Amino acid sequence: MKKRILLAATMLLFVTATFAQEALFSGRGAIVSPEIHPDNSVTFRLRAPKAVKVQVTGDFLPTQNIKFDNGMSYDAPGTADLVEKNGVWEYTTAPLASELYSYSFVVDGLTVRDPSNIYMIRDVVSTTNVFIIKGNPGDLYSVQNVPHGTIARRWYNSPTLGFERRITIYTPPGYESGNKSYPVLYLLHGAGGDEEAWISLGRTAQILDNLIAQGKAKPMLVVMPNGNAGQKSAPGEDEYGLITPNNPFAGGGSGARNTQVKFEPKSSYELAFPDIVKFIESNYRVIKKKSARAISGLSMGGGHSLNISKEFPDMFDYIGLFSAATITFDMGDRQDNPIYQNIPAKLKTQFAKNPKLYWIAIGKTDFLYNANVEYRKLLDEHGYKYQYFENEGGHIWRNWRIYLSMFAPMLFN
Amino acid sequence: MKKRILLAATMLLFVTATFAQEALFSGRGAIVSPEIHPDNSVTFRLRAPKAVKVQVTGDFLPTQNIKFDNGMSYDAPGTADLVEKNGVWEYTTAPLASELYSYSFVVDGLTVRDPSNIYMIRDVVSTTNVFIIKGNPGDLYSVQNVPHGTIARRWYNSPTLGFERRITIYTPPGYESGNKSYPVLYLLHGAGGDEEAWISLGRTAQILDNLIAQGKAKPMLVVMPNGNAGQKSAPGEDEYGLITPNNPFAGGGSGARNTQVKFEPKSSYELAFPDIVKFIESNYRVIKKKSARAISGLSMGGGHSLNISKEFPDMFDYIGLFSAATITFDMGDRQDNPIYQNIPAKLKTQFAKNPKLYWIAIGKTDFLYNANVEYRKLLDEHGYKYQYFENEGGHIWRNWRIYLSMFAPMLFN
Repeated sequence: MKKRILLAATMLLFVTATFAQEALFSGRGAIVSPEIHPDNSVTFRLRAPKAVKVQVTGDFLPTQNIKFDNGMSYDAPGTADLVEKNGVWEYTTAPLASELYSYSFVVDGLTVRDPSNIYMIRDVVSTTNVFIIKGNPGDLYSVQNVPHGTIARRWYNSPTLGFERRITIYTPPGYESGNKSYPVLYLLHGAGGDEEAWISLGRTAQILDNLIAQGKAKPMLVVMPNGNAGQKSAPGEDEYGLITPNNPFAGGGSGARNTQVKFEPKSSYELAFPDIVKFIESNYRVIKKKSARAISGLSMGGGHSLNISKEFPDMFDYIGLFSAATITFDMGDRQDNPIYQNIPAKLKTQFAKNPKLYWIAIGKTDFLYNANVEYRKLLDEHGYKYQYFENEGGHIWRNWRIYLSMFAPMLFN
Repeated sequence: MKKRILLAATMLLFVTATFAQEALFSGRGAIVSPEIHPDNSVTFRLRAPKAVKVQVTGDFLPTQNIKFDNGMSYDAPGTADLVEKNGVWEYTTAPLASELYSYSFVVDGLTVRDPSNIYMIRDVVSTTNVFIIKGNPGDLYSVQNVPHGTIARRWYNSPTLGFERRITIYTPPGYESGNKSYPVLYLLHGAGGDEEAWISLGRTAQILDNLIAQGKAKPMLVVMPNGNAGQKSAPGEDEYGLITPNNPFAGGGSGARNTQVKFEPKSSYELAFPDIVKFIESNYRVIKKKSARAISGLSMGGGHSLNISKEFPDMFDYIGLFSAATITFDMGDRQDNPIYQNIPAKLKTQFAKNPKLYWIAIGKTDFLYNANVEYRKLLDEHGYKYQYFENEGGHIWRNWRIYLSMFAPMLFN
């Protein structure tokens, strides 16, 4: 009888995964990849008997500085060659520092995911596999055995933009079962991102769960909207369907796929932001005070945070600019968006109201570094108070996770 | 000045996607794949200049019947060859019927995702790309311009099992802003699945949003728990970290990766189920009556629905068995789980209480077909009332989405 039970169980398991062909037919000698060794070196493996050349590319390898015609450059993840034995290709790294890392395989020039690793993240229009090396900060980005907050994907109405929009909301452990009111951090993504960026690439829920459990951050809601005024949602989540957005870097392409701007907004994202605050404060148990509201964002979202906080100087007491696009300040002649008008007077008003924290963070090799130098010079000239943090590296998620991990503990104290 | 703004915008877009190498360097002649033509034929494309053979495998191609030593067989998705031109491989299907389809490429024996398509679903331990052909039922599985419910991933306490567990909850449009109380459908996954299965593979939110908007289903909560008593959550969502579970079909492998059972439950899943109902009824505005509770599931989850509803005969008025593992009824000699004891008496009690709907659905080529024939014979012998639906096909998600689309409209009328 036992055998029969086992057979039945096996059958059930088996046919549930009709599409799991890879799993089914890759055979009994299942490959483990990535394998993280006790010394934090990592072995990557890929079964590809017919391949001529297999490489791994990832942000744990020495970067390659790529220069463009226009003088810009950026640090591309490095590559390493795998070596073949019995049809299985393999590469082992040196011991790695604690981090969340991304990688892909390149098989005879074709970039592919690791079929042995189900963990992937999407960044704009491409996906990579991920793994975490334990320690600091890897542990902060990992799910720990601590109380967990709730992550909700829902829709709110934005009368100012003219349509309903999707939004991601983290409520802290205990929110649903209690009756306390909480402060709110509005956390904004960069260009090309959407309401999924911070919760997936940014590991927001894990960082907040862990900081709250350690007593390092106050329990708070984290609200992650879609920062593209012409979008309702992340790709695939609105009536445009499962259309892969145009690669914003490749230019051209089929018009039908250019989904960066899909709907006609009646206003700018910045000026429509009070719709979001109103929605949160009407639908959640939150503290409706300046001292209980924070806004921060990365890159374009840093520019959003800068502008929204100056347009609505009574709204936020905590402002965080992560690798921010302060470069928008060079565009004082733009007449189409009122947020670019009367900037000095608006900043004067904002800082006269003494925000509790105005935090600027950027990496030394960030392409927006000089723009941030200029912006800080402007603040310094007027004696506006801010705090500044500078670290290694450029315009990458590794830094934005670090900045969130530093910013959240400074809030609502 | 305009040029400068454009440059700045381009820079921002550019560097945000540090990992988007594929997107960056696959060049200006971006490939569109899959391309769905007006006649619903579909072209797949892959740039792989060095490949010798490229195939596409998917559930829209004629299936291949695969037989195993033990006499079992299953219908594997078919394959088709792509043809190369200037380094780009291409294949166009015949016009396809409306459906949500899955596919992968096979490049010289290596199964890979389509790099031009960001939409993927995970089924147990493998991921495939997906696309939808419009019409019926594809439109029902698509996001439409209708009011959207909220999807929450949160944690509940199961004292009976002995730990906190992750759960996915759909609340219907209007739930959060209103004060009405709603009925609840508990929707259970199959073996190998978890609390992500129905919301991703099953398209539950889209189906419910659309059925509710059409007035075909009552607004209801849908609760999707993790049905593996020894798990807290889907892979990657608990403190086991980003460990890819063992391929349940391949056997063997590294013990560290065998995460099918990770925690020691103090009870069976079935007997612990009231913890979930209690959690929902303590934390949500729901109607706490038998007539406002439904339970259904696929495969193993169908077996769960059968057993839970008979163990707690006052709990559910609507029971749905989708391709259910009624085969567990052959295991009357199991002494370790009380749910397998006194089955005839328990069924007698359950049916004496006249559940409003006992719905059994299965495909003609499902490997559990005969077990369902046996089970229906048992119900018939005692005159227990049920409704029965039979269609083409086997033990596949295509059928389970159909069954959900049929079952939900029959509830709470």
